[in-house]
Amino acid sequence: MADTPQRSPLAPEHFPSLPLIRGVSFASVQAGVRYSGRTDVMLAQLCAGSVVAGAFTKSSTRAASVLDCQAKIGSDSDAGAAIIANSGNANAFTGKNGIEATRAVTGAVATSLGIPETRVFSSSTGVIGEPLAHAKITAKIDELKGALSESSIQHAAEAIRTTDTFAKGSGAQIDVNGTSVSIAGIAKGSGMIAPDMATMLVYIFTDAKIKRAELQAMVSELNEVTFNSITVDSDTSTSDSLLVAATGTSGVDVTGSADFRDALHSVMKDLALQVVRDGEGATKLVEIQITGAANSKDARVHGLAIANSPLVKTAIAGEDPNWGRVVMAIGKSGAAADRDLLSISFGDVLVAENGWVSPDYKEGDGASYMKNDHLVIAVDLGLSDGKSTVWTCDLTHGYITINADYRS
Amino acid sequence: MADTPQRSPLAPEHFPSLPLIRGVSFASVQAGVRYSGRTDVMLAQLCAGSVVAGAFTKSSTRAASVLDCQAKIGSDSDAGAAIIANSGNANAFTGKNGIEATRAVTGAVATSLGIPETRVFSSSTGVIGEPLAHAKITAKIDELKGALSESSIQHAAEAIRTTDTFAKGSGAQIDVNGTSVSIAGIAKGSGMIAPDMATMLVYIFTDAKIKRAELQAMVSELNEVTFNSITVDSDTSTSDSLLVAATGTSGVDVTGSADFRDALHSVMKDLALQVVRDGEGATKLVEIQITGAANSKDARVHGLAIANSPLVKTAIAGEDPNWGRVVMAIGKSGAAADRDLLSISFGDVLVAENGWVSPDYKEGDGASYMKNDHLVIAVDLGLSDGKSTVWTCDLTHGYITINADYRS
Repeated sequence: MADTPQRSPLAPEHFPSLPLIRGVSFASVQAGVRYSGRTDVMLAQLCAGSVVAGAFTKSSTRAASVLDCQAKIGSDSDAGAAIIANSGNANAFTGKNGIEATRAVTGAVATSLGIPETRVFSSSTGVIGEPLAHAKITAKIDELKGALSESSIQHAAEAIRTTDTFAKGSGAQIDVNGTSVSIAGIAKGSGMIAPDMATMLVYIFTDAKIKRAELQAMVSELNEVTFNSITVDSDTSTSDSLLVAATGTSGVDVTGSADFRDALHSVMKDLALQVVRDGEGATKLVEIQITGAANSKDARVHGLAIANSPLVKTAIAGEDPNWGRVVMAIGKSGAAADRDLLSISFGDVLVAENGWVSPDYKEGDGASYMKNDHLVIAVDLGLSDGKSTVWTCDLTHGYITINADYRS
Repeated sequence: MADTPQRSPLAPEHFPSLPLIRGVSFASVQAGVRYSGRTDVMLAQLCAGSVVAGAFTKSSTRAASVLDCQAKIGSDSDAGAAIIANSGNANAFTGKNGIEATRAVTGAVATSLGIPETRVFSSSTGVIGEPLAHAKITAKIDELKGALSESSIQHAAEAIRTTDTFAKGSGAQIDVNGTSVSIAGIAKGSGMIAPDMATMLVYIFTDAKIKRAELQAMVSELNEVTFNSITVDSDTSTSDSLLVAATGTSGVDVTGSADFRDALHSVMKDLALQVVRDGEGATKLVEIQITGAANSKDARVHGLAIANSPLVKTAIAGEDPNWGRVVMAIGKSGAAADRDLLSISFGDVLVAENGWVSPDYKEGDGASYMKNDHLVIAVDLGLSDGKSTVWTCDLTHGYITINADYRS
């Protein structure tokens, strides 16, 4: 989409100032894969000694680049590495041509940067089912190489957008025994967002020193409570990819560091919520907090049933405190619930308890709360201690307009 | 909703002419439960000797009247029976008050008609979580009784509408050994429509003679391939109820009659598709045909994943032959699929096969097909012989308008 859509009302005011990560440099270019008048390919180069961890869509129709990343992600290597991503074409459901396109791109990057092809990770996002014009990308590799700079991360974030209305970035810095460790990440994602995972590409970089296997375990665990706990429209892309690279250039070993884990969690959660904030047509960011479920799996099922219910989402769009639709969604979820033990709150407003509307509830209180941009819907099942939090957005005319007209 | 919404563009031209079912009479009345200026309660009286079968929502938060029907439906009785239904208030999530309201209504009908309370089946549809003003209904029972007529089925269909834009009826007549057997049914349903079951009330009547247990088995089986195979918005109501009553007044025993089963199937399917045709905001009726799945359960999972995908449904609204989104939905469904064995057709237009767009496919052919009101999306998984058909509609601005503004 050459035209930039109107910026989401839930967008942050501006792209954040992110810490430089020594050992990672970025470049972006206009390759004309599909869009014109904007960048559409980004390259990130990682210094020798970097480790890379990742998480990917579980779609059975996932794209060639995802399969390629998955084949490469589990190996240790001391060689340098690279990430290349294009927007405009997902290179998904493109048969053997798709595999060849991925090989052409990763091979060209490997040759240009002098690293093994097994260390080049690629992503493609955009239209499904059309052949990727990979020659347009490979023709630009040397130009990308020449433009690499540690300070160009924001431009990289801009190059990977599709229907995103803003570029997404998040960073953190912690102090470990007197030395600073930094994390900087970028993401794209707007529609086709749901576990597992959202339609998104996420690249996070840190100068921490950590073993690949440990980073992978941390990423997999944090992914569940961040990117795998958001849903815009219940649809799951063929291309979702999260890559986390640690260069070790800070010299600080963060093995076992709770501070590092917390910082990485905060960056991942921030990027995940930015994706929801940019949900197609979104005007409200909604946090669904489930407690008291029979177990945490049931809590998640209830949370997603509420978060994905078109009737709940349209009520939120209409600022209607329609807790009856929340009851409906719990009822349909298939997870354990006892109607007469439920309690439901909108923010601090207790709306329902003991199987009925709360005696103290006033419709005006609920209606007033629903005017907020950021809403919390809390449901306690009253059964046991299972809990889960998921995030979603409302369902508006904007979603219909974007998706009934734009071939994404 | 007092204002009648604009009639669905997919609505039949007029309410059908239905056969009279001897032994069943109908009445409707303006009780003012919620709406004004329209009827909102219907009563159907069934002669002694009638048998009643049913199927109900599996929601864990189902309404008091559903629980009451389920408790009553499994018993044989030679007494007369009755069905009473109101629109405007679902009497769901109304705690003990809900049980008392159901008892008050069914008790008043039983007393007025001189039949056991265990033979009075009730339904309520409309707003969730508000107390049902049952005194408004019980005050009208004698008026309803006085108005009972075998020819008033269309008025009954009108009284049970909520957001429906047209009253739904369907009938059939078959000849069994020279004697005519008739079936006539009515339904309401528009939003909150998904298995199990749609947000709907369905009442079907026949003068056939059949044992209750056999009728129940037939209804349960046919329900799976009709009302449990439609979805408007993936949401499931707290009130869905299907009742099928056989008076035996034709004197014709239809035990084991394939013709009767087929006729009942056709009435149930017709009513189910009318509900989809009246899907909130619908402009397209879409049939999803899955074949070649690993088994029939997987086929259903794939069919519902496509039918419930907001991205598929918005593409259909936009008349975009976006088969990439169909691939996405198959990929996310969780059921078995091999990307390279898939084939996808829109009507007679083969769009994708062997993991990629068909070499003969022309975008113009797909775009032209999508302009039809009634679409068939056929997917062959190429794995085994599992198959399933589900029906849905598109997702339009109309759905958002109805559900962001109307508290249903």
